[in-house]
Amino acid sequence: MTARKQLLLTPGPSAVPERVLEALKLPMIHHRTKDYQIVFERVNENLKKVFVTKEPVVTFASSGTGAMEASIVNLLSKGDKVIACFSGKFGERYRDIAQMHGLEVISIEKPNGQAIGAQEVGEALKKHPDAKAVLTTLLETSTGVLHPIEQVSKMTRQSQAILMVDAISGLTCDPLKMDEWGVDAVVCGSQKGLMLPPGLSFLAVGPRAQNMIETSTLPKYYFHLGAALKALKKNDTPYTPAVSLVRGLDAALEMISEEGLEAVWSRHQKIADWTRQKIKDAGLKIFSQAPSNALTVIEMPEKLKSGDVIQKMRDERSVIMADGQVELKGKIIRFAHMGDTAREACAQEGLAALADAMSSLGFSMTASSRIS
Amino acid sequence: MTARKQLLLTPGPSAVPERVLEALKLPMIHHRTKDYQIVFERVNENLKKVFVTKEPVVTFASSGTGAMEASIVNLLSKGDKVIACFSGKFGERYRDIAQMHGLEVISIEKPNGQAIGAQEVGEALKKHPDAKAVLTTLLETSTGVLHPIEQVSKMTRQSQAILMVDAISGLTCDPLKMDEWGVDAVVCGSQKGLMLPPGLSFLAVGPRAQNMIETSTLPKYYFHLGAALKALKKNDTPYTPAVSLVRGLDAALEMISEEGLEAVWSRHQKIADWTRQKIKDAGLKIFSQAPSNALTVIEMPEKLKSGDVIQKMRDERSVIMADGQVELKGKIIRFAHMGDTAREACAQEGLAALADAMSSLGFSMTASSRIS
Repeated sequence: MTARKQLLLTPGPSAVPERVLEALKLPMIHHRTKDYQIVFERVNENLKKVFVTKEPVVTFASSGTGAMEASIVNLLSKGDKVIACFSGKFGERYRDIAQMHGLEVISIEKPNGQAIGAQEVGEALKKHPDAKAVLTTLLETSTGVLHPIEQVSKMTRQSQAILMVDAISGLTCDPLKMDEWGVDAVVCGSQKGLMLPPGLSFLAVGPRAQNMIETSTLPKYYFHLGAALKALKKNDTPYTPAVSLVRGLDAALEMISEEGLEAVWSRHQKIADWTRQKIKDAGLKIFSQAPSNALTVIEMPEKLKSGDVIQKMRDERSVIMADGQVELKGKIIRFAHMGDTAREACAQEGLAALADAMSSLGFSMTASSRIS
Repeated sequence: MTARKQLLLTPGPSAVPERVLEALKLPMIHHRTKDYQIVFERVNENLKKVFVTKEPVVTFASSGTGAMEASIVNLLSKGDKVIACFSGKFGERYRDIAQMHGLEVISIEKPNGQAIGAQEVGEALKKHPDAKAVLTTLLETSTGVLHPIEQVSKMTRQSQAILMVDAISGLTCDPLKMDEWGVDAVVCGSQKGLMLPPGLSFLAVGPRAQNMIETSTLPKYYFHLGAALKALKKNDTPYTPAVSLVRGLDAALEMISEEGLEAVWSRHQKIADWTRQKIKDAGLKIFSQAPSNALTVIEMPEKLKSGDVIQKMRDERSVIMADGQVELKGKIIRFAHMGDTAREACAQEGLAALADAMSSLGFSMTASSRIS
């Protein structure tokens, strides 16, 4: 076990606040008792608030990928046509899940770092008016790109397709208003803006999506949404829930509720703006062309490898940031401001660690760009 | 949140020891770092010891039902014939999962409380030599029945079928020696003998089962065993693992390792024997005809409803036991000795609470049968 306390600035898992950690270690209770039901009822109400919806939000014991698969297998059927938008690893994952389940996938692909907007989605929907769903991502965590969900949703509403959004790492960091924007299905994970350990995933479904459950023919058992929605009405689950994580979630949702969701969004915005400016002042480039407030993705200068910088920050300052994935490995650093680390002290410590590590690796900054 | 400390004697979740609770609240670490890898490597080695196998044991973030489904979708294909043994709710669940995925299921069904042995399995295999797998349960938690896996495995070995065992609630309570007995796939959950909160599941696969992965045509993504086995070689997972639960698992497995698995089995046996004897002395009947050491299932006398007794134990003594499920609701009480509660003090307190509650509800025991 690590003795030394790290500053965890990776884009998930994010740091878990002490109050949530305390809830995780409460003595075990049985999930089919009043003691648990009281907690789960409160959790279910508070979950709706962070999804900004009146619709049910189902909680699964799984990582976020599980809820992505749940959204596909419960709402769609073999051979259904879907439009998958992607410009990074997680958008690709949504496409892969759809393909693996035998859907006909129309891809809208853009290079890493770019967002896919309403115009591209509108064109695809015009060419494919028989599409049953548009799959997209709120925050593409691999590149730090925020997609314009409100506009994409307006465009999708002009077709018969539903809009399914992977908001695993963006929820509570970047605004998403499910009902107001008309989003039909939203997927989330616990270890990002929700400030929990990984192990829970969520799927919120609006009326149009709910209507599609009955006609879906894809096989499902563990991720059976119909059974989960039925149980949810009694604040229950078809299978044993991850009790300790749900109690942690209860604490995290109370924290968000006390601060207010709008204030949480603003806090992320403020920290992200501040960090981006400092990075630019230092003569570095922001990789994402449509940056999310959950993380700052920094392009590495030619001669530096991000892995070396990350290793130095870890070894010398116990500050943990993430490298790029797949073809971006070595080329970017992902510096998160998610949940409890979207705070000035964390961003400052992160920047100081970054400046030290880069300087000692020979990246000479202009005088005005000294990060401290 | 419950302030008062309960004695949790339900057959899962079982009570979580303090040492495991402490591990759950360690500060979050990232799963793709050395800090986590060291933990996960140790966990993977120690998991093999409790499954008594040299084969890989995959850990999923899900409840046990997820790993049951994983075993079906990764080893079998649509139309495959399987023999499903069941005499209770969880055996039925394995059958249901197989059916839902389009397998041809041959059922061996017995009444609640009875075990399905090698003879019945042998007869079914003779009639269906083309069966690809036998599905059975180590401990049928709904009735307290222990199945004779060693004998069933010997019988299955005489056919081409693999043996798949749901050991969700029996593992570490009742002996199971995967390699020595020739079991091909073993499923487990975290919240029973492993003394953890719910939220992790396990799937161990032997060589014959591993060979079936490549030919399996059922769709899978989150529960993709091939991807999980490949990642496991580097002590990694395809998707984000439930970090805090894995650290709890690390602590729990160390506790089991320190005590020794044989000693853990003996402790369960001793407590179960003692409890069963006391129950019989009190003039009550044991429901299961082949009792497991993980729980004592008590038949309620005619005029008593188990729900009333359970409520009284809960309200007056903070002792939590479980009612029967489905058609057994109201008719039995399930009194567990699982993991950390397989101890004399817990069994004694449970018995005392039971005697008090039953007495106050008018069940007059003979003098010699006073439980105390």
